This record gives sequence, structure tokens and C-alpha cells, in this order.
Amino acid sequence: MTDVSKQESIAAAGAVYYLFGATGDLARRKLFPALFSLYKEGKLAEDFAVVGLARRPRTNEEFRQDVYESIVEFCRYKADDQQLWAKFAEHFVYMPLDINNVEGFRELGKLTLELDAKFGIPGNRLFYLALAPNLFGPVSFNLRDGGLLETKGWSRLVIEKPFGYDLESAKKLNDQLSQVFSEEQIYRIDHYLGKEMVQNIQVLRFSNAFFEPLWNNKHIANVQITLAETVGVEERGGYYDKSGALRDMVQNHLLQMLSMIAMEPPSRLHPEDIRDEKVKALRSLRPFASGEDVARNVVRGQYAAGALKGKGLPAYREEDSVAPESKTETYVGARVFVDNFRWAGVPFYIRTGKRLPVKTTEVVIEFKNVPDNVLFANRHDLSPNLLVIRVNPMEGIYIKINAKKPGADNAIQPVVMEFCQSCLIGINTPEAYERLIYDAARGESTYFTRWDEVAQAWSFVDRMAQAWKEETSELHGYAAGSWGPTRMDELLSEDGYFWWPVNGQDEDNVIWISGSPK
Amino acid sequence: MTDVSKQESIAAAGAVYYLFGATGDLARRKLFPALFSLYKEGKLAEDFAVVGLARRPRTNEEFRQDVYESIVEFCRYKADDQQLWAKFAEHFVYMPLDINNVEGFRELGKLTLELDAKFGIPGNRLFYLALAPNLFGPVSFNLRDGGLLETKGWSRLVIEKPFGYDLESAKKLNDQLSQVFSEEQIYRIDHYLGKEMVQNIQVLRFSNAFFEPLWNNKHIANVQITLAETVGVEERGGYYDKSGALRDMVQNHLLQMLSMIAMEPPSRLHPEDIRDEKVKALRSLRPFASGEDVARNVVRGQYAAGALKGKGLPAYREEDSVAPESKTETYVGARVFVDNFRWAGVPFYIRTGKRLPVKTTEVVIEFKNVPDNVLFANRHDLSPNLLVIRVNPMEGIYIKINAKKPGADNAIQPVVMEFCQSCLIGINTPEAYERLIYDAARGESTYFTRWDEVAQAWSFVDRMAQAWKEETSELHGYAAGSWGPTRMDELLSEDGYFWWPVNGQDEDNVIWISGSPK
Repeated sequence: MTDVSKQESIAAAGAVYYLFGATGDLARRKLFPALFSLYKEGKLAEDFAVVGLARRPRTNEEFRQDVYESIVEFCRYKADDQQLWAKFAEHFVYMPLDINNVEGFRELGKLTLELDAKFGIPGNRLFYLALAPNLFGPVSFNLRDGGLLETKGWSRLVIEKPFGYDLESAKKLNDQLSQVFSEEQIYRIDHYLGKEMVQNIQVLRFSNAFFEPLWNNKHIANVQITLAETVGVEERGGYYDKSGALRDMVQNHLLQMLSMIAMEPPSRLHPEDIRDEKVKALRSLRPFASGEDVARNVVRGQYAAGALKGKGLPAYREEDSVAPESKTETYVGARVFVDNFRWAGVPFYIRTGKRLPVKTTEVVIEFKNVPDNVLFANRHDLSPNLLVIRVNPMEGIYIKINAKKPGADNAIQPVVMEFCQSCLIGINTPEAYERLIYDAARGESTYFTRWDEVAQAWSFVDRMAQAWKEETSELHGYAAGSWGPTRMDELLSEDGYFWWPVNGQDEDNVIWISGSPK
Repeated sequence: MTDVSKQESIAAAGAVYYLFGATGDLARRKLFPALFSLYKEGKLAEDFAVVGLARRPRTNEEFRQDVYESIVEFCRYKADDQQLWAKFAEHFVYMPLDINNVEGFRELGKLTLELDAKFGIPGNRLFYLALAPNLFGPVSFNLRDGGLLETKGWSRLVIEKPFGYDLESAKKLNDQLSQVFSEEQIYRIDHYLGKEMVQNIQVLRFSNAFFEPLWNNKHIANVQITLAETVGVEERGGYYDKSGALRDMVQNHLLQMLSMIAMEPPSRLHPEDIRDEKVKALRSLRPFASGEDVARNVVRGQYAAGALKGKGLPAYREEDSVAPESKTETYVGARVFVDNFRWAGVPFYIRTGKRLPVKTTEVVIEFKNVPDNVLFANRHDLSPNLLVIRVNPMEGIYIKINAKKPGADNAIQPVVMEFCQSCLIGINTPEAYERLIYDAARGESTYFTRWDEVAQAWSFVDRMAQAWKEETSELHGYAAGSWGPTRMDELLSEDGYFWWPVNGQDEDNVIWISGSPK
């Protein structure tokens, strides 16, 4: 448990950062740039070192050159101050490592002591595993056996998704890690939790008297969470074909966002208290009772050939490294219920897919409408009020309401009141990975998923996977570049609802207009 | 009672419009332009005529020239279509009239019959009295005695404020009018009720499920209504010095806006039902019990010499036609309560004044804040949520909320979600007078003040006037160009509140930023 308030705006405690998978894509695109941004902002002081680890040989100089190129290409700060860059790069060393060979870890231990001495690091060690999950166990064992955890500072393990393939494998993995690390030492990344607007959800909910009284089944009709990608599987066909959208997106990102929306207010803003509430929300998810139940409430889809913006797109089964008869889903939509007093009866519609028309992540809260036979509703088709939280790539929130149309004909039009964070001039929103590395380094675990969250989420999605395995539910085709299987629209219309357009300002007939930015 | 829904978007029934005071300022600045706009929009068909009436002689041609010049200067539409203009102007005639001479009215009757015949007007007559109130009675009697009300169409009387000087004189005036016209025939103009955003209040309240649950003393801390002018008394010194801000602004505009905010939902959107609810709200105003009560809750002020934007400004007592010892108030601020179940305990702060720093009319609804020792409020000074309705000159609404400040330091900042109607590109908001003339011509009386509203408002403000007459409360000086007497700020701070900055986007430290207008 950490009192975050006491730590605000100070540099994280000095530590050695071990980047396993240092020659990989994640390191290059996200981790190096994040470390540089943190350094630029004083969130890394001088008492740190980064050890790049991977199989292939590389000199320190070559490694630093990799880091430099990554920052030039991907970092939101420029590396144009030569002196600063040189000072930063000095903290980076590389060591080739066969992760199955404990001897290498012993050497790593010696290197660590040198780095501790050189930079005045108090023995803190953060092991960042940007590796395939099947290596998490072996690496952990060798960290222990190689003596790397014998330190007077703290040791923390940061791991990437996926955490298992289902509840059983996740348990197995967790059992392995537990032999080496305690739960408090394990930081499971779900990078959606590092996103500004996802973190904003709790601020919006708990610091505005405007929202809290409306945040329940008396006032909310349904919640719609969309995580749409335009990309296909790209080079990840081999991995993706085994995983699919359910494991790649629903089990983690979608259910995490859902739990942020649905959770009860915690008693305190401490990491464990917040995660306790998220687990409770996940635990209240109504489990699917049977294959029929899944078929009734869940839609799985796979993209067929199609087109986006006039460009022809291949079918999923034609993608590289995808089996030509693959039944892997590239789309999942579902109607789920949070069976507690707050949310009883409110459907949460969630959907994610590849090759959809727009890249966007949005949460739409649709409010119950005014009675349809009272006053203005008697004469006009009034649209219900919406609160929309835009997570990615636009960041902001807006409320859709009904207002008088100027003029004497008593017309009513939907208008939008908006705060567009990503429109702020000169703003430079931190990347999710900056926040998460910084948090891990200062022991702030709020935005990492705890084991019981992971387990609860797996137990929920496993029932879907099971039903699909038993072939009781259909795999719907959808044209690449479309909004997924029409079955999903039917599912909402059964309840009298429909998907509100995402990126409403482009697709909707609503009046958007806002005043003078300062 | 009129079913407005059946009349939407059609031209008003044909009628003769009698403009008494046709050579005056109101006709020139507001009425002629309004008639032209209505004509342009098809809300006046061809079966109408306008008779300009005033004492001084004028030919039809001269009168039409007056109308033309007024439109060029003040109308939101251009009179550049010569053919259209000629067709429009043909409907205008002028007749010099001594309003004390009934013979002139008989002649007017003959002229009317000619116009009815010429334009195919079915005998409807709308008498618009842009005259001093002491003439309303005599004109009404002569309209009757001159035979002008003997028609098979309808007759309606439209009158400008002020309606009396206090309850007694208003009653006397109403008694006179009642001898000639029934209440349903009398249309008392309060041009604030013609303003788009004032009319929008009921649409916002009754067509958005988002606001209705919050619209009460459980969720609203206080309401702040500001009607601020930058001008002094200009050429109206003679009138104003007898009237003062209480009679000129509070009795009508401010209390009308207050009643739109405070009223209960009507059973139907019919004019009488809506006005019934407004009267109820006015009737629930807690009357001032004594002179001390007035002194405790009302602030009257008079501007002293001062400056605005570097320009020196004279004191009120130095203005033309103002008595050098005048005690007339140019500022009124008050704390008033609506004693009913919905509003018990919620102060309504109202203020109006001349020579204030900004010309603006705004309604600010301040919501009760989240508990100040819970979650984020524990660590941050959270600003309460506001809903702001901008009436004039900017038109729009915004909500001020708290959101996460981007970055890892867990900071919270107030941000604004805004809909700025007056920012709409290409919008051409109708003037209040267009709406009101059009409404009167189609018998839609919602946005005119009924006698019981007027009487109720007088009875409320008379107690203030009485207290001031008895000199039990102080006349506070304030520098021209300042926000009025500091006593008014003290009054709010007694309750733990303060005036929120009007035109918040210029004066506040809040983040305003909005997305892409379509």
C-alpha cells in the first residue's frame, strides 16, 4: 500500500531497469521513448541504469544507437540536446543473455553491482519482461537462482500481456511467478490502464457532483464500449491466429474499461482499494450459463475480403501466417450485465474488432430518455442524452443534449457540449508506457491488473471460448472495412437500442460548435 | 388557448398592424426590421398591412423611406432585392393621429376597411403601442370609441414595458385596459422572453433526462442571474431617474428569467399552463418581511465617477436630466428564496446594473459539490460543477466539471464542456421582437407576461421600493466600470459563495477547448 499523495511530482527511487527483449518491437516503439520522456521530465534522476538484454550480441555503443534511433522516431520529446542525450545514454548498457542459462544471470548480477556502484543505485531492481509469456516462468526462476533477487533494495517484475491463454494456463503461470515473486512485486501491464482518458474515468466520476447522482440504473439506459481497429493482423498472424480478439482485447482492455465505469467508489484512492472495487465489478458480471446463452449474447466474427477508403482488403484467412480454414475470431461483440444494485438491468454492450472503418476507442453512456409522451417529447423525437468518453486516438469527453433550434418554429435539435483534450494546443499527452513505467518504479500499482482481476476476467471469457469450441455459436463473416457482423446490431435492437456512431462529429447529424479556445 | 403544434412554420393570419409611436426609436430599431425579417421568412404572407401612427405629419412615401433606412441600418436581412422591397413597402401606410381625438380613430377605421379590402385581410387587428404607458388607457378607450374593435376578425393589444410604476398604478392601468380588452387580447412584452436562450431554458429542462433529476435543492447550491450593462443612462436620464434599476430590470427581466429557471414542469406546453407555473414560482418568492429584511438581502447602488477601458466616466448624478441629488438606484443585487419543496434553502442571487465592466446576461447554476473529505476532494480543492446559460450577447450553454490533468502527477483541473450557439457559422439568430410580433399575430401568448405575473412581480418588488423610500437601507456608491457595491459580494460570502465570473472564458482559469466544428 502506498500513499501516492506523498510521492507526487518527485523522481522515482533509483533502480536498475532490466529490459528483457531489448531488441524487440515494444522496446523500440514504446519503452526507450518512455524512459527518455521520464528522464526529460525529471522523473528519472541520475541514479538509474538500464540493462538491455536479448539473445543476440550487441555492443553498448550499438545498443545506445538503437535507443537513439527509437527516440528520434517515436519519442514525443526531441533528443536534440547533445549533452543531455550523452548523459542519458551513459545509463544504458547491453548484455547478451541466454535466458535458459543461469550462468548468464550470475554475470548479470555482477554487472548490476557495478552499475549500482557507478550510479549510486540503492539496490532496487525492476525486471521488465517484454517477452513471450511462456518465458515468464523460466526467467523468474533464473532471476532467483542467479541471485538477482538478493538485494537490499526492492525487486519488481513488470510483465506484458497476455497473462495466460485461459484461466487454467493463467493459474499455472501465476503459480510459477508466485514461487519467486509476491503479488505485490508483480506489475501486470494492461496499457489501456495507462491511457489518460481511462484514468480520467474515476476523476470524472468521483470529483463531479454532476455525474455521481446519475451513475446508476435509474438514469443510465445502457453503456457502449467500442475498441475498433482498422488494421488487420499485419505481421502478427501467427500469434493472433492462436489468440483471437477475445483473448487479445476482451479479456483485458475491454473488461478493464468496463470495470472502471462500473466499479463502486472505493473507500480510499489507494491501489488495493481501487482494485478491490474493480474485482467486485468483474465478479458481478453475469456469467454465461450455457452455449445457448453465449450464442444469444455474444457475436463472434471474422473479416472477409472487403475495402476501406477504396482500397481492397484481403480476408483474414488470406493473411500471412493464418490458417486457410482458421476459425479464429477477429471481432467480438457482447451484451453483458453487471448484476449488482447499481447496474441491475443495464446492458453493457462491448465490441472490438480488426478491419473496422475507424480506429477509435470510446465509451458511450446512454441515459434513459425523458418520458416520451410528456411536454416536448410529445411533439418531437427527442434523442436521449449521451455522455461520451473518447479514449483513443481523440481524447476528450462530450455530452449530447437537446436544445432549442434558433427560430420561431419551436424545433429541437441535438447539440453537443464538448471538452476536447486532444485539441489543446501545445499539449503533449504522456504515453501510457511512461505513466506505467513510472508507476511501477514508485510502487504505484493502481493501473496494473492484480491476479484476482486477471483470474476473474479469464473465468468470464472462458465460458465464451468454451461455447465457441463446442461450435454452438456461429462465426459470422463481415466485410473488411465494415462495422462487423450485422448480428451485433440485431442484438442491440432486440433491446430497443443501437450503436451510437463513434467519432460522432463525423457521422452524426448533431450540432457541434464550441467557443473560443483561450 | 392555442395548440401551437398545429401552427408551426406557417404564416401568421392576415392582419392590420397599427404601430402607435411609428416615428419613435423602438419602431426604427426593432419593429420595422422585425417585420421585414418575418416577411423575408414567409411568416407574413401578403394579406397584411402596417399603419404607422404618430402625431407628426408624414406622407406614405416618407414613412416607407423611414422604414427602408431602418432596415438597412438594423435588420439582419438585407433589403437589396428591389422587387421584394417594393412589394413589402406597399403594405406600409402612414396616418398622422392625435391620440386624444376620437375623430382620428374613426378615420383610421375607414382607412382600415380600405386596407382590408386591398390586401384581402380578414378583419384581424393588432394594435402595437410603442408609447409611454400613461397613454395605454386613453388609446384603448379611443380604439373602442372610434369603432376599431368592431370587426369580425380578432383584435389584440401589444404593449411595451413598463406596465405601471408599482402594484397600485399597474392595477389602475390594468383596470383601464380591461374595460376595453380581455386578458386574452392583451400581449405584454418583456423582450427578454423573446430571447433564444431564455426560451431555451424550458427546452433544456424538459427535454433532457440529464438535467431534470438534478434540478432541485438536493443538487443545486445556488443560482446566479446577472444582467449587466456597460452603458449609463444615455439620453434616458429623465425617464430612468424616476424609474431606476428595480423597476426597469428587476420587476420584469430578472424575475422573468428567475421564474423560467424555478418553475415546475407544466402539465402541457400551452401558454396558460406555462404561465400558471411561472406565476406559482413568483408567488413562492419569499416576501421581504421588513425594512431590515430588505437591508439584509438587497443591495442598491448608484454609480459614481469611474473608468472603463481607460476611459473616464461621469457619476450618475452628473448625467444629463438626472437630479444632482438623485437617490435613484442604477444597481440592484438581491438574495431571494423560492419557498417551495423544490427550491427550499437555495439562494437565488440576482443582480443588474449600469456601468458594469461587461455587457452580459448569464444564468449560472452552481451545483452542490462532492463531499470535501472524500476521495479526490481529500487531496484537491475541487471546484463545484456549474451549468451556465449565456443569454446575451453570447448565446450558448456550458458545463464546468473537474477532469484529470494530463500527466502522471494526479492533478485535477476544471474544464469546460461547451455549446456555443452564437459561434455557429452562418447562423442568423432571430431577434426577440421578430419572435414576439409573430407570436402575437398567431395568438401564441407563452412569451408575454400575464396580468397575474405582472401583479405578483410588483407586489414582490414594491416591498423593496417601500423600504428604500423609508430610508432604512443604504444607497451604496460604486465606481462606474466596477462590478457594483462590494456589499453584494459580502452578501454571497455570508453564505459561503461568490459570484462566478461572467464571460468565464475571458476571466476564469478554467481550461476551455473544443473540437472541430463541422
